[in-house]
Formats: sequence, structure tokens, C-alpha cells
Amino acid sequence: MAKDKLVTAITSRDEDFAQWYTDIVKKAELVNYSKVKGCMVIRPNGYAIWENIQRELDKRFKETGVENVYMPLFIPESLLQKEKDHVEGFAPEVAWVTHGGGEKLQERLCVRPTSETLFCDLYSTIVQSYRDLPKLYNQWCSVVRWEKTTRPFLRSMEFLWQEGHTAHATEEDAEERTIQMLNLYSDFCEQVLAIPVIKGKKTNKEKFAGANSTYTIEALMHDGKALQSGTSHNFGDGFAKAYDIQYTDKENKLAYVHQTSWGMSTRIIGAIIMVHGDDNGLVLPPAIAPTQVIIVPIAQKKPGVIEKAQELKQRLSDFRVGLDISDKTPGWKFSEYEMKGVPLRIEIGPKDIEAGMCVLARRDTGEKIPVNLDDLENSVSETLESIQKDLYTKAKEHRDAHTYTAKDYDEFCNIVKNKPGFIKAMWCGDEACETKIKEDTTATSRCMPFEQEEISDKCVCCGKKAKTMVYWGKAY
Amino acid sequence: MAKDKLVTAITSRDEDFAQWYTDIVKKAELVNYSKVKGCMVIRPNGYAIWENIQRELDKRFKETGVENVYMPLFIPESLLQKEKDHVEGFAPEVAWVTHGGGEKLQERLCVRPTSETLFCDLYSTIVQSYRDLPKLYNQWCSVVRWEKTTRPFLRSMEFLWQEGHTAHATEEDAEERTIQMLNLYSDFCEQVLAIPVIKGKKTNKEKFAGANSTYTIEALMHDGKALQSGTSHNFGDGFAKAYDIQYTDKENKLAYVHQTSWGMSTRIIGAIIMVHGDDNGLVLPPAIAPTQVIIVPIAQKKPGVIEKAQELKQRLSDFRVGLDISDKTPGWKFSEYEMKGVPLRIEIGPKDIEAGMCVLARRDTGEKIPVNLDDLENSVSETLESIQKDLYTKAKEHRDAHTYTAKDYDEFCNIVKNKPGFIKAMWCGDEACETKIKEDTTATSRCMPFEQEEISDKCVCCGKKAKTMVYWGKAY
Repeated sequence: MAKDKLVTAITSRDEDFAQWYTDIVKKAELVNYSKVKGCMVIRPNGYAIWENIQRELDKRFKETGVENVYMPLFIPESLLQKEKDHVEGFAPEVAWVTHGGGEKLQERLCVRPTSETLFCDLYSTIVQSYRDLPKLYNQWCSVVRWEKTTRPFLRSMEFLWQEGHTAHATEEDAEERTIQMLNLYSDFCEQVLAIPVIKGKKTNKEKFAGANSTYTIEALMHDGKALQSGTSHNFGDGFAKAYDIQYTDKENKLAYVHQTSWGMSTRIIGAIIMVHGDDNGLVLPPAIAPTQVIIVPIAQKKPGVIEKAQELKQRLSDFRVGLDISDKTPGWKFSEYEMKGVPLRIEIGPKDIEAGMCVLARRDTGEKIPVNLDDLENSVSETLESIQKDLYTKAKEHRDAHTYTAKDYDEFCNIVKNKPGFIKAMWCGDEACETKIKEDTTATSRCMPFEQEEISDKCVCCGKKAKTMVYWGKAY
Repeated sequence: MAKDKLVTAITSRDEDFAQWYTDIVKKAELVNYSKVKGCMVIRPNGYAIWENIQRELDKRFKETGVENVYMPLFIPESLLQKEKDHVEGFAPEVAWVTHGGGEKLQERLCVRPTSETLFCDLYSTIVQSYRDLPKLYNQWCSVVRWEKTTRPFLRSMEFLWQEGHTAHATEEDAEERTIQMLNLYSDFCEQVLAIPVIKGKKTNKEKFAGANSTYTIEALMHDGKALQSGTSHNFGDGFAKAYDIQYTDKENKLAYVHQTSWGMSTRIIGAIIMVHGDDNGLVLPPAIAPTQVIIVPIAQKKPGVIEKAQELKQRLSDFRVGLDISDKTPGWKFSEYEMKGVPLRIEIGPKDIEAGMCVLARRDTGEKIPVNLDDLENSVSETLESIQKDLYTKAKEHRDAHTYTAKDYDEFCNIVKNKPGFIKAMWCGDEACETKIKEDTTATSRCMPFEQEEISDKCVCCGKKAKTMVYWGKAY
């Protein structure tokens, strides 16, 4: 009975995007709500996507010299409080442990919302000399931030992520690492997740609590709202001074280290859903799909069909391939694997076998491609590559078609109101204009992109001399 | 300066085993103590061992059909309390979150000490029909148990582990899975970690809170104390009844599921240290060593030496291979990689190059093996295999030499007092005898082994008719 619900149609994406999103995470069995308000259960279909993201990102981190560690879940209140901006940014949204082992604790422990303070504490004990630098550490873990309104993957009280924390001898080394990791995230999103991103710097108002500068990659969802998809922060020596992380340099003088941190979280699964999904359900890029190819036999009770399907599965063992020989109908199976976003389906029945053929059905376009069995491995490989490439192109075209420019404030407000998407517009650099725009329109500055254009010479808000072009938009 | 400390000698293993252990975890840079009392920082050398353990175990789990998920970090008090034995077992040692987002919570949340209750809650919502069974879920996460006295890896307030939780239609299926996972753990310990283990069942007194039966693998450390290295529990339908996990069977009748859980933790790293380590530091089995082979050039300033060493590294890229061309002396490097437990060292200098040779030095035996460069890959491969095999044999011989039998209570008490190790002795099955033995000697029942022997027909404690042979010992 539960199974029947799975293939009933979901809400249309254009009719109610929020409900469409909720339907997908539930019917593609990515997430279950739990008895713990605001926390999600990530089910096998959802977690397998995260495992593929982890494997791919972790490999790229390690290629740049990063090492993994594990830091404590708890942060004593006194340790959290050492860096002023940082504690102000995070203290309001943390969870406090006050009792343990049946006793009231002498000092409250917060459940980590992020681990800068713990890494600083570690670095202050293990960094002594310039020979100990750089330290390039990362951890995969969960963090907790108290949220009033939550949505699976996009905003939850607990989420999974990786947080990289590095310490360097010089300001230049720290800045180089900050940008290196931003580029790594950007390449990962574009090459692996098929999600085009805008790279840029956050304004002071939007930067991370305690950072000198925050860099970001911003993606556009199908509904025209932006999603911050990864961030990389340069801390300068602010944390080093608060936590006393000094080293002896080559001239035997004491100096403070320069630090960075950078993170990507399970939020990115929300982006995959909202960039690629359609009215039939999830659409997964082959590079991170838990199942890349599903084989569905037709008229499987006819002699030889299941055997042939099993033979194909064997031949495709270089891919993540599945075979469904359950007693559901082929049509039911088609819908199920479409809902779950499997990129490629292979249909094989008695007539196909007789003709030495099978049919490849693409999840992204619905296209059905008859293929000679002799050429199966190549055809599957090429089709998966096409899907990966085409998903990126389609997403980029959608983003470009929903990126607007505004020269004056009327035009800006009109676009925010009527055309969901990114707005490129000039800014004077004054936080007051940023605040006014947010209050008037709910759009926020997404980033000051690396690729600047001169849309006009005046700030779109106040009309004074413009300093920078900014991407604006409503955001998740 | 900090570096110099690394190669100073550590406490001798036979002189002070506890101090030797502490020296190793610190000097091999596995762990750092943190500002959070009882929690450890796992450093890159320690975490890389855990990553290799994870990869190998995870692969084996998945081959048996297990899928990974992620469950919330927090358990509401009311959910924890549904199974009576379980809450009694864990409530005294949990950490409580009482405040979040600046407000006092209406219901306290405990930080998970284990996740049976959450999995039960999930299964009660997603299991409806016999078609939904079995559910074979696992998660990799950290758990928290309040401990008064802590030691890195062996006993800490927070530790990393995996916890598998399965739901089955029948009692037989649950028992089969319980034993299957115990065997998987046992094979993993013996084949990958080179640690021989005793498989058996826990007595009622020692079983998991809420389980019908608990199975265990027990390993013997170098100092003659036992370490419980992995457990697998059969819950019967007790949790299913407490959490109302029912399904419709093939006859369309409602029935309760039968459940299991099984776990292995970072404790096992403590076992690796205490089974294989020696007075020069850590000794790692090749199968999980982060670096399997370290190349140390001799007289590296002589022309061509570093180039040759780099060439060897290139040729050995199928292994986890490192090359140290820092300006430390070769002797210093030898000590450092011995401390860190790297299984195999390659020494290559001008004379070796001239002769077309290099020297392999085994970490476990100290043996130096001159090897023809033409035959390098084979020699390395074979030597690593020998090390893996020989570590197991050595550990097994040590265990067998420290396993004793006791026929009466005097003999038993005498062995506990004077001969650290396992004691095989008969038991009547009465918990009173178990309690008396523990009180008199501090030895506990480790397990009722699958491989039974009849040492005598009388209980070693009370002299009444014996039911079972039990392995006894002092334990970590």
C-alpha cells in the first residue's frame, strides 16, 4: 500500500515549488521526518548521494595536501567566547549541554555549530615553528544550529558537512588557500553536480562571523532563488591573536599564523534537487547518482529474458548498475526509478533480444535510444556522459535566462517583484544601501563576483558613485 | 624542538604498560588531549587508521546488503524511555541538552549514547508489509557516554563508531544476521587487523541493555588483559513491542519484527596498539597502515640519490608509499617511522644504486633484506604479506601462551593474581558465581565461547554441576 503512493504524481514544479520539493524528498525516499523537531533522518537513497559527494570531494581535498582529523562534539563556553565576533554570531543559535552523567556541569558545553575554536585550540598546542606550517586539516562531521523553521537539506537543526581549517605562515599563503578551495568547490559543482555557479566575495554585512573576508559560490535554483553552495573564509590573524597561535619564523622571531576555513554541507543535495528535478521527480547527474543505470526487463516471465538482463548487468559492472526483477509491472518500475532520479534506464524484452537490441531511456530528456547489444558498454558510457554534460548546459541556460541587469532602483524593484532570478546591479559599497534593498525587496547581496562588469557608474540604490557590481537575489 | 621529543625513547612496555600506551598515542601523533575533558582530538595519523578501518568494514557490510543512513544526534527523553531495560542501562551516562536557541527546552534531549530508539522510531513509520523486510541499515557517527576516567581510544566521553540496526520478519532471520555480523567482525579483526579473537556469547549479566542475547569477539592485549572488540545483539521482538513496529505478514496478519544491532568503534585502534606495538612505538598491520612503505634516501645530497628514490616511489604507486627527503638524518627518520608504525622501510643510497640494490627493513622484526631493484615491486608485495601474516601468528602465539585453564577456585584465583591472560573455566550458569568471582578477583566473564571444551564437570566457583565453559579475564 505504501508502495502505491510512491508513484502517484507529485505536485507540479511550476504550480507550487515548495510543495514539489517536499514531495520529492519524501517520495524519492531521501529523508524522513523524525521525532526530533528540526532534525532529519537521511534514508539510504539520500545518504548514498552524500557518500558519493564525500568520496569525490575528499579525493580532491587530499590531492591538495589536506589531512582529515576528528575534533570533539562539544565546545566549553569559555573556549567559544575567546573571539568576540565569532561568539556573537553563533551563541544565539547553539544548543547547550548542562547535565552529564547525572550531574549538573560546572561549565556549560555547546554542541559545535562550527569548529573554529577547537581547531584554534589544537593549533595553539601543536604549532611551534615555521616547519610545522602549513597545517591543512579537514573534518567530516555533523553540526547543530538552532533553527525555528526547517526544511530537509536546506535548513535543519543538525546537518552534515565538512569543515576545512588551515594555518599558514603568511597572509599571502592564507589568501591563496582560501581562493584555491573556492575554486575546488566551484569545479566540483560544475563538473560533478552539473550546477553552474557564480564565484565572488561576500560583502562585509554577509561575511562569516570572525572572518576578514568570505568567498562564496552562488547557484540559481529552478524557481529563480539563489542558494549559497559553499564558502571559503580568510581569517587573517584575528583568531590567532584571540587563541594565541604563534610560531617561530626563520629569523627566530615569534609571529601569529594566518588561518582559513571552508565548508560544504548536505544543503548541496537541496541544490541538486532544485536545479535538476522535474515533474516526474528527482534527476541525478550520473557522476553522483547512487544507481547510474537501472535495467528493467519487459515480459520477464518469457524464457530467457531475466537471464539476458542479468547478463547485461554483468557486462555493465564498471557502472553503478541495478536490475529490478520484482513482480511489479514495467510501467510501475519506470515511474519509480524516474522518481528516484536514476539517469539511465535499459529496457530489454523478447523482441529486443531477438533483434540483438535494447532500449536506453534517458531520465533527463525522456529520449528512447535503440542500441545494438554488441555496442552496449560504449553506448551506456557515451549516453551517461551526454546526460552529465546536457544537465550542466540546461542549468546554465536556465540561469543565464534568469539573470537580469538593473540600472536604477525602479527597474531593480520591478525585476525583484516580477522576474525571479539573479540581478546584476552596481553598488556604492555602503552597508546602508544593502540594508535598504533588503528591507524594500527581501533581495540580498549574493556576492561581488570575480568577473566584474560596469553596468553603470552609479549605485543602483542611492545613485552615488558605484564601486562594484553585485549579484543580488532572493535566497534560500 | 618539538620534533626532538618525538624520537626520545618511550617507556618500556614491560616496565609500565599504561604509560607505554600513553606515550605511543602521543608520540605517534594519534591523539591530542583537548580542552573538553574526556574528549579526544584524533590527529591525522590516528584518523587515517580509522578511515582505512571504515573503508574495509563498510565494503564488507555492503556486500551483505547493508545500506547506510544518518539519524539525528539527539533523542527526546520520552523516546528514550520507551524500552525499560534500555533506558535503565543508558540514562545514568548520557549528556542532556536543556537549552537551545536561547531558550529552555520543553523536553530535554539526550545526546545519543547509541541509536536503537531512533531506528525503532524510523522502522515504526517505514515498515508496513513483509515486502519491506528485512531492513539492513547502518550509520557511521559519534556517540557520547559520560565517563569519569577516560583513556584515548579505550574509554572516552565521545567516540566514533558504526552502529548497524536491522529489522527482520522472523526470529531465525534475526539470529542469522546477528551471527553473520559477528563472523564479519571476527574475519575483519583476524584478516585485516591481524588480531586473533575468541567468538562467543555474553552471559546475561554482561549483555547489552535491552537485548535477548549479546555476542562478542574478545581479544587479548599484550599485557594479558582482554578487550571486547565488537558486539552483535539479538533483540528479539522486545523493542518492536515497546516501539510498536508491526508488519502485515503473507497471511495478512499483524506481526512484530525481530531486530538486531551490532557495532565496532575507535576502541579497536586501542587494540591494534596494545596487540602489536613494541618498545620502539606503534606497529601497524599493512592492511590498515596509512603509509605502508616509507622510502628513506641515504646520503641524499650525493648526485642521483633523490632522483632514484623518487623513481622507486613512482614504481610503488600501487602501495600507500611515502618518501622523506627532509633534511633530518636517516637515523632520525628511521626512529620516526618506527614510532609511527610504518610496516616497511626502504633504504637507498649511492652504494645500493651502484649495485642495483636497495634494503627493505621490516618494522615488526627489524630484519633487513637486501633486494634487487629489478624485483622491487614483487619483493615489497611479498614482504608486506609476510608482515601481515606474521603479526597475526605472533599475536596468536602470545594469546595461546597466555590462556590458562582452572579446575578449582584456588587455581583460578592464583592464575588471576599471577598470570595475566584468559582463563578457561567451567560455570554453573548462576549469576551469583559471576558476581563472586568479580568481587574476589576483578576478573569478569568475557564470553561463553562457541568452541566449548569440558575442563571439568563442576563450576569453578561453587562446585555445583557445570553448564558451560567460560573465558574469564581482567578487561579494559
